[in-house]
Amino acid sequence: MNTSVLPNINTDLVEMAPHFQFAHSVDCVIFGYDKGVLNVLLIESDHPDYRGQWSLLGDLLRPNEDLDAASYRVLRERTGLTDMFLEQVKTFGEVDRHPAGRVITTAYLSLVNVRDHQLKSIDNALQWRSVNDIDTMAFDHKMILDACLAVLKRKIQEEPIIFNLLEKKFSLRNLQLVFEQILGMSFDRRNFRKKLFTTGLLVDQGEMERNVKHRPGKLYSFNREAYDQIKKKSFVGLQF
Amino acid sequence: MNTSVLPNINTDLVEMAPHFQFAHSVDCVIFGYDKGVLNVLLIESDHPDYRGQWSLLGDLLRPNEDLDAASYRVLRERTGLTDMFLEQVKTFGEVDRHPAGRVITTAYLSLVNVRDHQLKSIDNALQWRSVNDIDTMAFDHKMILDACLAVLKRKIQEEPIIFNLLEKKFSLRNLQLVFEQILGMSFDRRNFRKKLFTTGLLVDQGEMERNVKHRPGKLYSFNREAYDQIKKKSFVGLQF
Repeated sequence: MNTSVLPNINTDLVEMAPHFQFAHSVDCVIFGYDKGVLNVLLIESDHPDYRGQWSLLGDLLRPNEDLDAASYRVLRERTGLTDMFLEQVKTFGEVDRHPAGRVITTAYLSLVNVRDHQLKSIDNALQWRSVNDIDTMAFDHKMILDACLAVLKRKIQEEPIIFNLLEKKFSLRNLQLVFEQILGMSFDRRNFRKKLFTTGLLVDQGEMERNVKHRPGKLYSFNREAYDQIKKKSFVGLQF
Repeated sequence: MNTSVLPNINTDLVEMAPHFQFAHSVDCVIFGYDKGVLNVLLIESDHPDYRGQWSLLGDLLRPNEDLDAASYRVLRERTGLTDMFLEQVKTFGEVDRHPAGRVITTAYLSLVNVRDHQLKSIDNALQWRSVNDIDTMAFDHKMILDACLAVLKRKIQEEPIIFNLLEKKFSLRNLQLVFEQILGMSFDRRNFRKKLFTTGLLVDQGEMERNVKHRPGKLYSFNREAYDQIKKKSFVGLQF
């Protein structure tokens, strides 16, 4: 057996050699929020079988690259972003998911603030698309997007990750809109505000919104340091 | 380039060929609860570098096998179990995690009821070990175990998965013990019971415990059908 194309294999373990025939990729599901719409960053696929269809931003894992490092690299290379929320969600490994052979892919969820982080449009083919407008995608990317969206819906209720989608200073009106847009439901304004204030984690910035069509609201920031202190008592109670 | 050892590769895409040099495995973190102790099912490693150290139950993904199917196969082959809670948790892909080369592994969390499901000890090397007694393990398996334990702690608070560790009929005393053992904290007995009854998901079986040293308690079952109905309103409220 010629193992010259399999440089990573310890030849003491030749019985494992036939198993070293998989490729591994990362796919980043990058969500952004803009003017009342939850968007996801996509690119037109250049794969012959899916040309012109929307595809997630991803790449093949390199032989000497950690899995997490690959997801950071994809974000950095394709968007210019270096400091963002990024978390592994799920790995997809169906036999026929990629036409080139067995490519297992690990999906990462990322949240970016579209205004603070202007995308350095390295790649003009990148586009923000409303998650509600996406029907079909290349490969199994629609399934991956849906899985990440479900995780996003759960996580914004459990951890304060939603603030990654907002500017540092935000109005409660805008915060409520983001929650409502992602969860696909509306909240009573008073109850929502009461609930948020009860956390003690919002800091009044002593400033008002500007250039808005509605009556300007107060601006707040999220007190992450206080949250990190509270978080140590990890028991959140039985929710089911 | 000789691609004869890479049968899955579409030769139209030869530029991808050098990427097909990874192996992929699944590792199952199988938890069981017995007499006040949370256990995990382990096996002594037969890998030369880790001989005699504790290892998770896992195997290499086969060329024509879906990722999820591989985890079911490992459970079935090694334990004889076919019907259990099994869920993907996380994928571990550090460059040096396996001495044989790039082996990416996906960890699955499984919960079994030790009494209802007698292990068909196909493999005598399998042992239930208390999670509190495990210091070192083969490969990066201690890190994988810790990650799955953290997910278990979170999930038992969010979803009624804990009942997978118990017999169909259980006492509230035993249910509280399992929660306390996994979370490493104790609950006030009255508050715990009140909270559980408030869910409306426990069904009095009209029977009492037998052969116990303490005063026998009532036996209950979990009403999964009712839970599945409730679950449809997915918003659990802001927990952070």
